[in-house]
Amino acid sequence: MKNNLRLLALASAASIATGAIAIPPPPPPSAAELAQQGDDIAWAITEDLTTEIGPRLAGTEAESAARRWAVARLQAMGFANVREEQFDMPVWVRGEEAASLTGPFLPQKLAIAALGNSASTGPKGVEGDIAYFASYDALLAAPDSQVKGKIVFIDHQMQRAQDGSGYGQFGRGRFQGANAASKKGAIAVVIRSIGTDNHRTPHTGGTNFEKGVTPIPAGALSNPDADQLVRQWKRTLSMRTNETALGYTPEPLRMKLVLTPQNLGMKHSGNVIAEVPGSDPAASPVIIACHLDSWDLGTGAIDDAAGCGIITAAAKHVMSAGQPRRTIRILWAGAEEVGVFGGKAYFEKHGTEKHAVALESDFGADRVWRVDFKLPASAKVLEDRIAAELSAFGIVRGKTPAGGGADIGALVAAGVPAIDLQQDGTRYFDLHHTPDDTLDKVDPVQLRQNVVAWTATLAILANSSDAELP
Amino acid sequence: MKNNLRLLALASAASIATGAIAIPPPPPPSAAELAQQGDDIAWAITEDLTTEIGPRLAGTEAESAARRWAVARLQAMGFANVREEQFDMPVWVRGEEAASLTGPFLPQKLAIAALGNSASTGPKGVEGDIAYFASYDALLAAPDSQVKGKIVFIDHQMQRAQDGSGYGQFGRGRFQGANAASKKGAIAVVIRSIGTDNHRTPHTGGTNFEKGVTPIPAGALSNPDADQLVRQWKRTLSMRTNETALGYTPEPLRMKLVLTPQNLGMKHSGNVIAEVPGSDPAASPVIIACHLDSWDLGTGAIDDAAGCGIITAAAKHVMSAGQPRRTIRILWAGAEEVGVFGGKAYFEKHGTEKHAVALESDFGADRVWRVDFKLPASAKVLEDRIAAELSAFGIVRGKTPAGGGADIGALVAAGVPAIDLQQDGTRYFDLHHTPDDTLDKVDPVQLRQNVVAWTATLAILANSSDAELP
Repeated sequence: MKNNLRLLALASAASIATGAIAIPPPPPPSAAELAQQGDDIAWAITEDLTTEIGPRLAGTEAESAARRWAVARLQAMGFANVREEQFDMPVWVRGEEAASLTGPFLPQKLAIAALGNSASTGPKGVEGDIAYFASYDALLAAPDSQVKGKIVFIDHQMQRAQDGSGYGQFGRGRFQGANAASKKGAIAVVIRSIGTDNHRTPHTGGTNFEKGVTPIPAGALSNPDADQLVRQWKRTLSMRTNETALGYTPEPLRMKLVLTPQNLGMKHSGNVIAEVPGSDPAASPVIIACHLDSWDLGTGAIDDAAGCGIITAAAKHVMSAGQPRRTIRILWAGAEEVGVFGGKAYFEKHGTEKHAVALESDFGADRVWRVDFKLPASAKVLEDRIAAELSAFGIVRGKTPAGGGADIGALVAAGVPAIDLQQDGTRYFDLHHTPDDTLDKVDPVQLRQNVVAWTATLAILANSSDAELP
Repeated sequence: MKNNLRLLALASAASIATGAIAIPPPPPPSAAELAQQGDDIAWAITEDLTTEIGPRLAGTEAESAARRWAVARLQAMGFANVREEQFDMPVWVRGEEAASLTGPFLPQKLAIAALGNSASTGPKGVEGDIAYFASYDALLAAPDSQVKGKIVFIDHQMQRAQDGSGYGQFGRGRFQGANAASKKGAIAVVIRSIGTDNHRTPHTGGTNFEKGVTPIPAGALSNPDADQLVRQWKRTLSMRTNETALGYTPEPLRMKLVLTPQNLGMKHSGNVIAEVPGSDPAASPVIIACHLDSWDLGTGAIDDAAGCGIITAAAKHVMSAGQPRRTIRILWAGAEEVGVFGGKAYFEKHGTEKHAVALESDFGADRVWRVDFKLPASAKVLEDRIAAELSAFGIVRGKTPAGGGADIGALVAAGVPAIDLQQDGTRYFDLHHTPDDTLDKVDPVQLRQNVVAWTATLAILANSSDAELP
């Protein structure tokens, strides 16, 4: 569409030229055109950050190195007001991790990853009978006697979905399962990974204990390991019922677990902020966010180096096309994975400032397939314009209001308008929080489509009027 | 085709019945028909072995338990002469394994697996500069000075192929790379996994040192980790050339490696053998083989529990359809992965006995797509018949002579005829020798197609005449 208009303008200029009138130069390329001319900014940020820094767990030296890297990179790209805004947060680090099924069959090792905030088993580990629960709800419904002194296993049936909606529903076993198991007297909890792949790569992620609840060791098994546990569980049950002549003692299913994570106390983390200064200093800024930290098992390519690549490439293209009216503020948040500490710190420092609209990219690197809005009524025409523009890239207009994202969550909750450029999450939970979150999983073609969609949207937002977005 | 003939027979019987002539009973189902009626034997063997025993590294207690399991299972299925034939072999077991890139960038952990026969680094590990080689041939061509005192990394470009033909070509880096690196003075060798996946699951497998060559520590990185090493290697080279202002000291790429495998000396392993006795004791037997041992990282579902499931299901169907003329001998070989010790032991004990023809299933559980023959001229009609029968299942007739397989390799080399029911290997090297070789990777539909093809072939072979297969 844009390209056609541009050709029309050129043709028109040419036809005027035949009338021997001075030829006006063709209009400079728009931001969206710049993005479409072939963007490698997002890829370069994603590749460089994941290669030169790698995993960057919140509060560690790696995250700190990533901030230094980020400041240097954003300055080199020509952004203004590049700065680090420090905050403190509690740091948890992974230790040794090993699990095995120890009976009634021959011992078999399982692939396991400790969940964030897991307690330590101590170096000698713990061993206990498995208490199987088909779901988090089944655990909640169980009497304490079924759990006390045992290692709880929480199963589930998460399936892949384009919008990632299974995460909230099935993720509860990770978010709250250890807390519930501890309250019922479990010695540890092991969950089936909140993931949709079938590789021996467990999915980590945070688990949370309420105040007053004793943290217990908590880990996630990869899906094939959870399958194996379930098969042995079923056989053990059937052996105990039938006392078959298999030659095995019909004992309960047992597990040995060694997890030695540590809490290191409060440490520095920080947000990295950069800006494209607007021509109207009185206009409220557009804020765009990603997160710089990652889990420690992979290099955090899709979660969320690519997100930082996408939003930064879009801001760069808008800047290259000419100064926008509004300031664009780029937030590379710190310590998102372990509790959205960066987003909270940003809100504490800047929450009372006016923000025109907030957007976040934190759902991988696959194509944007839908756009959701949560804009004031005054932005109706603006919203239609963005939806029409995105339609050219195959993006459908959603019917649900935009939710924002973790790091802009507090802003959106406080009333800042939001737009979600929803990414295709069909394969996101194959990789999410696993060792497999590495650069090779990023598809450069889909990454570029993200940049094009973001640039088109951002160019409109950054040049919107105060009447549209007050 | 078979089913149509059967229906025809039934219809014909019915039409004769209207003429009030006594109705002959329909013919009993053939072995191939039994297999097509829905086979779950192969799946059950694969599931039970991988669940109840799991990984079964040659010479370990797990492999020994697998033999006991196998004898019980084959007896329970009604096979005759079920027995274990023991032999001794040298046992190597995995220890601790860890690798990281330690400079010039921040330390980053890599997913690594020791190769079979790797020496130990000792618990403190070794650290050294990386000497990069794009291929095994590049290592061979390098002067010792490029290698001495360094950790050699061997890269390659293996691509997936339906016939698995990349394994031989690219696998040399694994089979012989450590030997070549040791001779040139390397302190250790690390290879890109001989695999076609992009998961953080390294591919183990044996490496071999010539007599007189000092074994050195040898491991395989997963493909994403090898990618990361290569990216850092390229940046390090460019930094050393350009001395860019990245803030890093332009040092060579370094790796820390901890591998503590052990050689346990000679231990017992064994073959498990079972038979379907033929009606003609003078006729030479048909031998069908798989291997019972597996590498230790996964549960050996596709390599090679499924193979044992396939050949055993086929033998069972032939047996159920009526006693064949020739004896079918089922060989579940021990200690294949670590040096084909079971195949060699079988040949030492039985190599002088006459065998009509040998077949092996050891290339996963995906569908048979091609059949290759290496039969005497006397078997031309037999060969045509098998090819025609298999054509009904979508199997093409190959133009290359059958090669046999590892465990029947010595027999075939000694002149025993062979048939290869070639399995689709397109995804085989995604899983081969990795932690990901687990039951979920077996497709029950394709597994069943294997059994149907094997049963049809085996029924013809087991009832062939001495004129066809002397």
